[in-house]
Amino acid sequence: MELLKKRISENARIIGNEIVKVDSFLNHQIDVNLLNEMGKEFKARFENQEVTKILTIEASGIGLACIAAQYFNVPVVFAKKSEARNLSPDVYESQVYSFTKDQTYTIRVSKEYISPLDKVLIIDDFLATGNAALGLIKIAQQAQAQVVGIGIAIEKGFQKGREKIEENDIKVESLAIIKSIDNGQVVFA
Amino acid sequence: MELLKKRISENARIIGNEIVKVDSFLNHQIDVNLLNEMGKEFKARFENQEVTKILTIEASGIGLACIAAQYFNVPVVFAKKSEARNLSPDVYESQVYSFTKDQTYTIRVSKEYISPLDKVLIIDDFLATGNAALGLIKIAQQAQAQVVGIGIAIEKGFQKGREKIEENDIKVESLAIIKSIDNGQVVFA
Repeated sequence: MELLKKRISENARIIGNEIVKVDSFLNHQIDVNLLNEMGKEFKARFENQEVTKILTIEASGIGLACIAAQYFNVPVVFAKKSEARNLSPDVYESQVYSFTKDQTYTIRVSKEYISPLDKVLIIDDFLATGNAALGLIKIAQQAQAQVVGIGIAIEKGFQKGREKIEENDIKVESLAIIKSIDNGQVVFA
Repeated sequence: MELLKKRISENARIIGNEIVKVDSFLNHQIDVNLLNEMGKEFKARFENQEVTKILTIEASGIGLACIAAQYFNVPVVFAKKSEARNLSPDVYESQVYSFTKDQTYTIRVSKEYISPLDKVLIIDDFLATGNAALGLIKIAQQAQAQVVGIGIAIEKGFQKGREKIEENDIKVESLAIIKSIDNGQVVFA
């Protein structure tokens, strides 16, 4: 998606060879007009899928998921993050390891809000190692819901997230794929 | 706002005399169509204010803030919560005590995303003790931005949040005000 790539090129802050900070329009300050264009693009890319629910993860996936949901006319469910590992009978949960924070956290979704009848589109801001997305897939699978695809704003193509998801036969659509970071500049795939 | 009150009456889960759980449409699963009606209502209630930015707090304020922002055509900034108390020179921050969790956390906004020129509308899902809203006001004040008002989805009118905010001469608009909880039933103001 050219609009998003342009915005990344102009406004992302690159730290080292792996970190792309998009705090100015996606992760901390949110450009809602841009999110609307991204939402339309997700709708176009998953046009033929019958989506009943959008699943994301707090916090930075929520804005994008909500704006995108308007084009699908479905509710959003966001998984809650917790450091606590105590099991609850009322939730689906999985463990997610975050490389950025070197920390494992539990993500949870109440059993009430995903059912075996759901066709779930997972939306998130970043795809890197794929751990967060896999955690969401596991939650949908526990609910016996079908995951119809994963829509990502920015994919770090130099990490292994896509492979791990495609191994589950799930379609990944990323609006901007970063192939590499070269001398402080983003190179798109 | 009748639509929201009706939804609360029908779908909120009441726990004891103080807790109103709206996980099914606002806080965990999100009814984006309802959020759009709420966003329009905020726009109507702050019609005469020139808003340049919507400020909220992660996680459950983000969806509502993003949907509402479409009617104001301004960006959203969400304060990040952290348990860490280490100061950073690049952020505005304040301490917020959560009664629900009996825990004090730090909320932070990067200095880049609020300026003295900003006219800030604060949006959040709940107003109870007012601590979260006051924390956001303090952040806006540190940035020397003007707070033009606070838009709340559900106000617990039996707690003291509104008083604390109005002491700062800031207008509060809540879409549903719960006066009391009586025998497991919500009574609106």
